[in-house]
Amino acid sequence: MSSNEKRGEAVDLSHHLSKVGKARQTSPLKGLHKYMGKPGLISLAGGLPNAAYFPFSSVSGDILAPDSFPLETDSKESSLSWFWRLFSRTDKERTSTFTVGKYSKHPGDLDLENGLQYGLATGQPKLNEIIREFVGKVFQPGYSNWTTLVHTGNTDAWFKTIQTILNPGDGLIVSEWTYPSAMAGAQPFGIIPVPVGMDSEGMSSISLRQTLSEWDESARGIPRPHVLYTVPIGQNPTGTTMGIQRKKEIYDICVEYDIIIVEDDPYYFLQQGKYIPKSDRVVDSATDDEAFIASLAPSYLKIDYQGRVIRLDTFSKTVCPGSRLGWFTCNPMFAERLERTAETSSQAPSGFTQIYVASLLLKWQYEGYLRWLKALRLQYKQRRDYFLDCFADEFHLQKKFSTEGYTAGTHLYHASLKPRRSFVPLSEKDNAYSKPLFSFVPPSSGMFLWIELHLEEHPAFSSLGYKALEMKLWTEIAEAGVLFAPGAMFFATPVEDDTLGHGHFRISFSNSTPEDLKKAVSTFSTVLRKFMKN
Amino acid sequence: MSSNEKRGEAVDLSHHLSKVGKARQTSPLKGLHKYMGKPGLISLAGGLPNAAYFPFSSVSGDILAPDSFPLETDSKESSLSWFWRLFSRTDKERTSTFTVGKYSKHPGDLDLENGLQYGLATGQPKLNEIIREFVGKVFQPGYSNWTTLVHTGNTDAWFKTIQTILNPGDGLIVSEWTYPSAMAGAQPFGIIPVPVGMDSEGMSSISLRQTLSEWDESARGIPRPHVLYTVPIGQNPTGTTMGIQRKKEIYDICVEYDIIIVEDDPYYFLQQGKYIPKSDRVVDSATDDEAFIASLAPSYLKIDYQGRVIRLDTFSKTVCPGSRLGWFTCNPMFAERLERTAETSSQAPSGFTQIYVASLLLKWQYEGYLRWLKALRLQYKQRRDYFLDCFADEFHLQKKFSTEGYTAGTHLYHASLKPRRSFVPLSEKDNAYSKPLFSFVPPSSGMFLWIELHLEEHPAFSSLGYKALEMKLWTEIAEAGVLFAPGAMFFATPVEDDTLGHGHFRISFSNSTPEDLKKAVSTFSTVLRKFMKN
Repeated sequence: MSSNEKRGEAVDLSHHLSKVGKARQTSPLKGLHKYMGKPGLISLAGGLPNAAYFPFSSVSGDILAPDSFPLETDSKESSLSWFWRLFSRTDKERTSTFTVGKYSKHPGDLDLENGLQYGLATGQPKLNEIIREFVGKVFQPGYSNWTTLVHTGNTDAWFKTIQTILNPGDGLIVSEWTYPSAMAGAQPFGIIPVPVGMDSEGMSSISLRQTLSEWDESARGIPRPHVLYTVPIGQNPTGTTMGIQRKKEIYDICVEYDIIIVEDDPYYFLQQGKYIPKSDRVVDSATDDEAFIASLAPSYLKIDYQGRVIRLDTFSKTVCPGSRLGWFTCNPMFAERLERTAETSSQAPSGFTQIYVASLLLKWQYEGYLRWLKALRLQYKQRRDYFLDCFADEFHLQKKFSTEGYTAGTHLYHASLKPRRSFVPLSEKDNAYSKPLFSFVPPSSGMFLWIELHLEEHPAFSSLGYKALEMKLWTEIAEAGVLFAPGAMFFATPVEDDTLGHGHFRISFSNSTPEDLKKAVSTFSTVLRKFMKN
Repeated sequence: MSSNEKRGEAVDLSHHLSKVGKARQTSPLKGLHKYMGKPGLISLAGGLPNAAYFPFSSVSGDILAPDSFPLETDSKESSLSWFWRLFSRTDKERTSTFTVGKYSKHPGDLDLENGLQYGLATGQPKLNEIIREFVGKVFQPGYSNWTTLVHTGNTDAWFKTIQTILNPGDGLIVSEWTYPSAMAGAQPFGIIPVPVGMDSEGMSSISLRQTLSEWDESARGIPRPHVLYTVPIGQNPTGTTMGIQRKKEIYDICVEYDIIIVEDDPYYFLQQGKYIPKSDRVVDSATDDEAFIASLAPSYLKIDYQGRVIRLDTFSKTVCPGSRLGWFTCNPMFAERLERTAETSSQAPSGFTQIYVASLLLKWQYEGYLRWLKALRLQYKQRRDYFLDCFADEFHLQKKFSTEGYTAGTHLYHASLKPRRSFVPLSEKDNAYSKPLFSFVPPSSGMFLWIELHLEEHPAFSSLGYKALEMKLWTEIAEAGVLFAPGAMFFATPVEDDTLGHGHFRISFSNSTPEDLKKAVSTFSTVLRKFMKN
């Protein structure tokens, strides 16, 4: 849908509400709200402490300039300057300061009197304005009456979504490899994951249609699912990026089968694009705001002409995880139900958090925040590139086009060991070094490299099975001082047949120093080399 | 149990876990924790952004001195000086400043690198140390292996408690008048409130025993409840304070019937004691820390020798509501289950909040915080006294000992109108002014005055019933510019018989200026005067 087209309102989707989601009552205090704004009103209804008793008289923050990080990638010659710039603490950061006092001088300004008081679950008005502007400009929802609602991070947002639209015994459509914490949140409520196949863009629309069209309630034991959970950008764990075409296909299927899409999208602004080996890499350069937004794979919101997407955004990756702040974008009916849920659980996000994030964004303004996001994306791109370069240095990589499984449709890198010593006997070389021991698709978004282990040649493969081998190798790497995330935990449903399949690791490149990233790859190589001989 | 007595460990109470509470899985990442502390470990397991990308380079706060408010009440002559001291902004506040930078100079110090990063649901170690010391010294739990766990405010804590120990269809023991938000949190999960009678100390142990001993599952349709929810101090809405003797009686019954006590205690430090009319009031003076603690009605924790109490504490009333921070104190088995719940919902409380509250308490230290709490209690005492003085000025109050209903065992103030003009005819005086139109027990804790309306003389009483009359009067008061909380919303179960009973209002004295409090009482009087004639 083009942005010029007239957008309709969300359709009625109230039949998707769960028993709990329906049952949440409008606060009995709602009747009081019509009096709230009245000038001169004396409200003795609530239990508010007087702000004079808040022991903070002001709070301040030093914030980085939005252009603290460059918009050009490094040239090949100095490929670590992105990093050194971060950590050379002698290098003066450019910062500016804001202060929020207890009582504001101008009405509507941020202050502690209101900011640290009990607040509506909808959050501070200033923050909401900023969020609404941002969603409109960046995600451009495909219907007119979309609504935003602050939440306390995507984990809690997903928890609230579960309670609002899922009943015990409901199926939940997920990718076959998926974010384990999201499953852990749903599982105690008796939600049953229904995995569908993937390819190199994430969830496969073919597999989704097949799952739904062939749904046999009596064989499956549960009705056809009406909710789909997805991490479309920087898919966790595989690191893929779903483009607009695939999203349209999936959205249309969801319209056909009346399915709500929960788009959990923490890595949206960490879209790094295709990995280009060091030798062929060119310098990235700046783009203007519109080109930047256009360069990002659009959100499901953009094609959501019915209001059936509940999008979860978070400041965890773009500001800091400790903010515990994010927002829903969804139709007003779901937003109202989610607000009711917040009223009797988290209430409003922390006042300190709201003050800090709102102050930051007010200081930066929309343009400044976009500038920050553009540079942040490049930081992650350079981290990703550097990390994959380490693999290219340490292993023999062979690029092959994949037509099968969750990597279908893209180039897969097969990694085999390089001989370390020239005097290795030829027979040993043949056995250990020629066969690929693992493979990966370079991630195009997010924080993770997802590798598939090919341990068929391991002496104990047939006796242990791949899950036990994966844990054995994981433990040996951990004992050698490097912690990966074991792959089995990312499978949507417990693995039944242990003799087929492959081991996996999810490896993060988001936080470590270049030395540690390099050392980790080298340690992995050393351990793997030894491991294959035992 | 005396503090010298040897304390045993909590008994096994795992049979109280709900289906959801039991089903929460230990995080698959738990296996990684054993490697976490290892020196030199390179962790590539999690999805942590690098702290260099947190746009805050430092945060600061100006905090009040812990002795900002006096420890002596005002003499009668200047009864508003407590208030003027708050608001005379020309009066210099005594403040000190703290700053938390991105990277700490000394290991273990607060910093943004860790404070704004993803953190364990157990919160910052520094904050936990402070909380643990505080609970041990102030609440003195009656068993040895009590555990504290941070949460994001008592509303969310109660929500997590519901999910951990209550199944749909379970009964929940509550006082007949109770906090509506707690009921609103439980109701969508199909929890059925089981109200028990009250007297002037809150929940009646006699009524509790009767309810439990006479429980008839087939008549009631649900099994005997195994959870009791209580606000024992500053009972919401009635403002009563439950002493140790009553708590022991209720605790023993809960041992006998195997019931978990959820002690929601936000007003613990707002214990104001007995109301003494202005003419007889004496000056309150300072006490030392031990005498202060001993002067407070003890928590259920103090007598909890089995670990069957889940206590909810919050910083909302003692620091600020916007902190969205508090903590559970309970046995380690419940704490572990609640931690699992937090991991898949709120995760850790906001990092900003943790930094601010920890910095405040580190600056103040335990002694400073107690000093603050002592003065805070006096502030609320003076507010309560002043507000009741306004009623004494505006209405004719008659003190009578009550032996009935939820006021049994204390003095009740019956309020009737004072003639406003001397030329009111005698007959009208007789009718309108001699009969008490409302009554109240002066609150001994908390933020609220709870009044019972006697509207039997209203011309429309027999036709409308008291609920409709309550709302009619409430609306007229609101239209006149004063907002009370209507009483009906505080009844634990919907009122069935509308012809008996009384109307009620809950009126807060926690936040307004003395002028507004006085004006509110005068407006109430004017509206009530007119109301009784219609």
